[in-house]
Amino acid sequence: MKAIRSKGFDPARIGWEESIFHTANGYLGVRASLEEGAPENAFTVRGTYINALYDIKDIKYGEKLYGFPETAQGIVNLTDVQTVRLWVDGEFFSLTEGEILKYEREVRMDKGFSQRSITWRSPNGKEVQIRVRRMASLNQRELFILSYRVRPLNFEGEIVLEGEENGNVENFSNPDDPRVSAESPKHLFVQEARRVDDATLIVSTTGRSDLTVACAVKYRLDEGGEATSRVDGERVLTRVTYLAEQDEDVTLTKYCVFTDSRREADPRAAALGILNEAAELDPEYWMIRQQEKLDRFWEESRVTVDGDKKLQASLDYSLYTLFCSAGRDEISNVPAKGLSGEGYEGHYFWDSEIYIFPFFLLTNPDIAKNMLAYRHHILPEAREHAKTMGHEKGALYAWRTISGSECSGYYPSGSAQYHLSGDVAHSFIQYYLATGDIAFMRDKGAEVLVETARLFMDAGHWVDGAFHLDCVTGPDEYTCIVNNNFYTNAAAGQNLLWATKIILDLRKAGMADEVTEKLAITDVELMAFVDAGENMLLPYDSLRGIHAQDDSFLKKTPVDLAYIPEENFPLLMHCHPLWLYRHQVCKQADTVLAHYLFEDLADEDIMRRSYDYYEKCTTHDSSLSTCVFSIMAAKLGDMDKAMDYFRRTATLDLDDTHGNTRDGIHTANMGGVYLGIVAGFGGLRIKEDGLHLSPRLPEKWDGYSFTVKHMGATINIQVRKNRCTLELLNGEPVTVFISGKKVKVKDKTKVDL
Amino acid sequence: MKAIRSKGFDPARIGWEESIFHTANGYLGVRASLEEGAPENAFTVRGTYINALYDIKDIKYGEKLYGFPETAQGIVNLTDVQTVRLWVDGEFFSLTEGEILKYEREVRMDKGFSQRSITWRSPNGKEVQIRVRRMASLNQRELFILSYRVRPLNFEGEIVLEGEENGNVENFSNPDDPRVSAESPKHLFVQEARRVDDATLIVSTTGRSDLTVACAVKYRLDEGGEATSRVDGERVLTRVTYLAEQDEDVTLTKYCVFTDSRREADPRAAALGILNEAAELDPEYWMIRQQEKLDRFWEESRVTVDGDKKLQASLDYSLYTLFCSAGRDEISNVPAKGLSGEGYEGHYFWDSEIYIFPFFLLTNPDIAKNMLAYRHHILPEAREHAKTMGHEKGALYAWRTISGSECSGYYPSGSAQYHLSGDVAHSFIQYYLATGDIAFMRDKGAEVLVETARLFMDAGHWVDGAFHLDCVTGPDEYTCIVNNNFYTNAAAGQNLLWATKIILDLRKAGMADEVTEKLAITDVELMAFVDAGENMLLPYDSLRGIHAQDDSFLKKTPVDLAYIPEENFPLLMHCHPLWLYRHQVCKQADTVLAHYLFEDLADEDIMRRSYDYYEKCTTHDSSLSTCVFSIMAAKLGDMDKAMDYFRRTATLDLDDTHGNTRDGIHTANMGGVYLGIVAGFGGLRIKEDGLHLSPRLPEKWDGYSFTVKHMGATINIQVRKNRCTLELLNGEPVTVFISGKKVKVKDKTKVDL
Repeated sequence: MKAIRSKGFDPARIGWEESIFHTANGYLGVRASLEEGAPENAFTVRGTYINALYDIKDIKYGEKLYGFPETAQGIVNLTDVQTVRLWVDGEFFSLTEGEILKYEREVRMDKGFSQRSITWRSPNGKEVQIRVRRMASLNQRELFILSYRVRPLNFEGEIVLEGEENGNVENFSNPDDPRVSAESPKHLFVQEARRVDDATLIVSTTGRSDLTVACAVKYRLDEGGEATSRVDGERVLTRVTYLAEQDEDVTLTKYCVFTDSRREADPRAAALGILNEAAELDPEYWMIRQQEKLDRFWEESRVTVDGDKKLQASLDYSLYTLFCSAGRDEISNVPAKGLSGEGYEGHYFWDSEIYIFPFFLLTNPDIAKNMLAYRHHILPEAREHAKTMGHEKGALYAWRTISGSECSGYYPSGSAQYHLSGDVAHSFIQYYLATGDIAFMRDKGAEVLVETARLFMDAGHWVDGAFHLDCVTGPDEYTCIVNNNFYTNAAAGQNLLWATKIILDLRKAGMADEVTEKLAITDVELMAFVDAGENMLLPYDSLRGIHAQDDSFLKKTPVDLAYIPEENFPLLMHCHPLWLYRHQVCKQADTVLAHYLFEDLADEDIMRRSYDYYEKCTTHDSSLSTCVFSIMAAKLGDMDKAMDYFRRTATLDLDDTHGNTRDGIHTANMGGVYLGIVAGFGGLRIKEDGLHLSPRLPEKWDGYSFTVKHMGATINIQVRKNRCTLELLNGEPVTVFISGKKVKVKDKTKVDL
Repeated sequence: MKAIRSKGFDPARIGWEESIFHTANGYLGVRASLEEGAPENAFTVRGTYINALYDIKDIKYGEKLYGFPETAQGIVNLTDVQTVRLWVDGEFFSLTEGEILKYEREVRMDKGFSQRSITWRSPNGKEVQIRVRRMASLNQRELFILSYRVRPLNFEGEIVLEGEENGNVENFSNPDDPRVSAESPKHLFVQEARRVDDATLIVSTTGRSDLTVACAVKYRLDEGGEATSRVDGERVLTRVTYLAEQDEDVTLTKYCVFTDSRREADPRAAALGILNEAAELDPEYWMIRQQEKLDRFWEESRVTVDGDKKLQASLDYSLYTLFCSAGRDEISNVPAKGLSGEGYEGHYFWDSEIYIFPFFLLTNPDIAKNMLAYRHHILPEAREHAKTMGHEKGALYAWRTISGSECSGYYPSGSAQYHLSGDVAHSFIQYYLATGDIAFMRDKGAEVLVETARLFMDAGHWVDGAFHLDCVTGPDEYTCIVNNNFYTNAAAGQNLLWATKIILDLRKAGMADEVTEKLAITDVELMAFVDAGENMLLPYDSLRGIHAQDDSFLKKTPVDLAYIPEENFPLLMHCHPLWLYRHQVCKQADTVLAHYLFEDLADEDIMRRSYDYYEKCTTHDSSLSTCVFSIMAAKLGDMDKAMDYFRRTATLDLDDTHGNTRDGIHTANMGGVYLGIVAGFGGLRIKEDGLHLSPRLPEKWDGYSFTVKHMGATINIQVRKNRCTLELLNGEPVTVFISGKKVKVKDKTKVDL
């Protein structure tokens, strides 16, 4: 059974549990806050979010220079429907009163709900068992169901449950942190809070983005329950009274529907309409359909590891959470913290493309396709951004954004990360190579590839026969504004070559006319792309025999990380950026990441030396780093290191190793957990000539397996000692490369390793 | 007569006139605002300032990283004593009513006052002549005198004058500019506003810096004047009534004294005490003593040009204003806008050392010495700043500051300008070479030189036998965070060599013990300074035969400035910094400045090629640029260019060529006007072997002259066609170099050129 559990009540863990046990479906996310309210002084973020539903706030600067973004989007905390208060024969249920006899939280990843189970003895000795289940429906994205069940264990008597919907909400702010409290956290304003027939309706608008959110709630009672509702300002309260028998359950179920004006013309009517239909159906109906969805999901997506239950749980949790975090429409994507918290303000980063996208591409290509559709959708904003940054043409994707415009208030590790445009291009290319979906390339992909290629043409220039890209920042945020970052140049080179390639492919297919005309593409331009792409400078240090992270990195002051006291990490919290930029110190994989993504640019000896060199410089202060080092260690055959880095990756949120999971889970890292197996130990790469695998088995494992889709085929890959079994589950036979050897997969194919 | 005049009343010129005709004495500065108030909608900054008297405000950041300063100092607008209202036989005098028959403003630089003269016909036909004189006393720094004289021209009748002191003041803010209005401009809060005997007393404190300012005012009336005073909240009003004869003057004189708690233990008592003494004396007394001060100033400092009155006026204005802007105590220096406005918030920059200091060093070495004492005084803050920036030792001067801590909200062109520490060191060295004042080096200079040298030792590192300085910003703010900026490395090299040299000189003089012990200086450290200084990397491009501005500048995309439309300048207002950083475009002289300050590092051929190369890249968007290009053009013999750049320098404020003189005058540029003659056409350099001159005469001039102090001697230098005359005005005979030839100056020495 796929479940994550946490036992015992610890007020210090409330924030972490709120993130870990949150429920989401890609559209709606609800943190696992305590229905009865958190104890005083406990850290809590009582949050409900809709993916891509944002308000606008000002960005302030000590000195504002030309082109600095003036405003940023931020995800909005919505009407709070989480509250259910309980009175047990007149005594208010609270975790700080009476006695907690049992306390357990879990997320059931097979069934798609989170659950809190408590056995509580009241100060007067009344014992109850409480079980709260929450589900964000994977079948009806607007629907969140909360079922609160109470069972008297040693008495019969009155059970009173009071549900609340509260429109008076704010985003999280920390009064002790002057940087947060200065900005008002109030972003949602109630326009209407009332009862409509037997439903609660709260309609609110955002402060500056002028978006509307409607929240409609209905209660389902057990027989014998008596309900009265009242409106109290911006709150609606519904009190239900049961006379309960000993050992018999009474349950209150809240059907909560959220709709928003980014998706619905009339969110108010839509909320009521969806709610009325949804509430007609039993909670059980929704549970069954939820499980069906997940059965299919696990069948298509599960990665199994034989011989390590902890890693298995972490793998399951990572994939499940990614599935629950990814937007399913073109205006939304995967926020850095999913829909589990307000960290990074609900923004989308390159995390989506480089860390998360491959999982969906290999298992749920429709979601992957949607992630790309989002990038196409915000192409106008990326063009505008390029203009602001001084480019005459092209598209520069914002470093962090919801609606497309740049939301970073520090451009050296924000807009300067030009690689993001190359990352987006890379994902389109991977999608095309994995699906062959040329219609999508005609409709969306080619436009993105050409516009990002144009950006690099405009940003770069020729020096002595090589194409240079100056003053950009690569993935490593401890080295900003450099010339010829190897990773960026590699990504840009691929981008440029493929912008031409895709147009030529479309021409061959007779599908190139529309995009050629729309973008006024000429053969001269296509040749220029190829010229720049082929002659892109890829800085190489012949003394060390490695690619240099950029033109000057290897000439900077080296640092021996071993001499830095542990409490000084992450360095960004203890060092001025100039100190970091001045030293050979990396926050995360940069050149090593390039060796993974663009592996044909360097031979293995270079990669090995490069790995050894940069590993010594890298602090892994970013959560995006260890998974890449794990993947590359596996590729280079250092299985101990691969396993070590993989474990560090896999435990990040569940063990809270970065100490900030309470702000939300780390979706990119979860993608990294997936990639650690599939791209790392499995050695999977999607290349122009097809799907490549180089399976290796860590010594301590008996085996592992995963299932991927490629060019219409579904293939299960089982890796055991010295043996890899490929099974065609679906589709036509397909040729793949196993450790460089061509293998035709039909039915079950066994390959010796 | 040395005067600057402006004729006719133009509301659009009010802001510019407020700056140009301001009165200041290095301690106190009062903008030349209209006594009766500015017309509605006219731009006005009604300001009064004390040098170094600041409040504190927060610096906000979109993303605040480690070490970013959280607060900044800003000069405070003080109690307004400028208001005098006039009623002419019952009609209120206003420039927007009646008829202005004559209107003239002037600054009398020989006498040290500013004056406004108006002949006005009231709506009812009453004609008056009004003359207002203002003086910030050069003999009593706390004293500002305003004399308001009225003469009825065609009537006799009642003249009413109402003076006001208003404690309810704010700093300037522009409600149309969201960046300004967000921060409250209210920094001064009245604690006490009342009459004490026959004086007004207003005592105020700053909002956050907890400083106190006292303002005390007395009125002096002509015979027959009747005065009544009343306190109205935070204002004190004094109304004086005269029955005036036709063609006879009536005058109201305000004695205004400002004191502050940075200089006085009890500012309140000090203000009243100073006022009572000052007001005992006739305004004429203060005028005479003012002129005496200026007679001496002009005798010691004046630069004359024969054959160009406009340039002469601009020269006079520049030197006069510098004299009125420079702080005379160790807590104050020369603000970038002097005491004439709130631009740059009253901060001190490198402008002080590189552009302004040489003027004082050559003419008023006491003021120069004080500027250095200020830097020594803020050494603790510079040490703190170095620590924040990650250095284990040394002192890094703040890019902009009042009290010593960094006030820049954008470190790439703020704290990253490490050259500032080298600039400060350079000034100490120049002071020592020009005065031989070894006692000052023992007491202050050596400590500064050693601490700044330590900074560069810590910031730099060795690569292949050369000492490198990475990730700094040179003078050119269009190229930030680069490796081995030529200028910075040159300054650091000099700094390092001299840190050792001065200790050796002190040892020879038996004066080294105290500083050696205090700073724990060892011989090993002194040798390391020399090693790094001698092997400092000075990037050189052998292809072009020029020094490279930094390691990568010459490899960046070139720009032909001719193709940029004029309305796009200054570029910083139209280009994102990354675009600027990515191109070979300079805001100001950088390598060319290094060639002027450290001329022995390159031969003349290199300098000439360098000049030609960088001139094409330079926009002169900074007001610190044209003077340097003028100096270097003169050195290289291109007299047309030298003259062209000199004119652009000299007209900046008087012709308002940058359009922002209303925010305050540009003191660094004024230093540049001085240097244009003395270091440019005169070719003056202070070197280890003595004073060097290389006089050249621009064709259109008949000659020029200036007087300098060097090693106790005062020498007047007259340059005429083919002839230079040196006259020893004071002191012992001294040997100087004229165009490389040694000349002993005693009495009058003529040298053929």
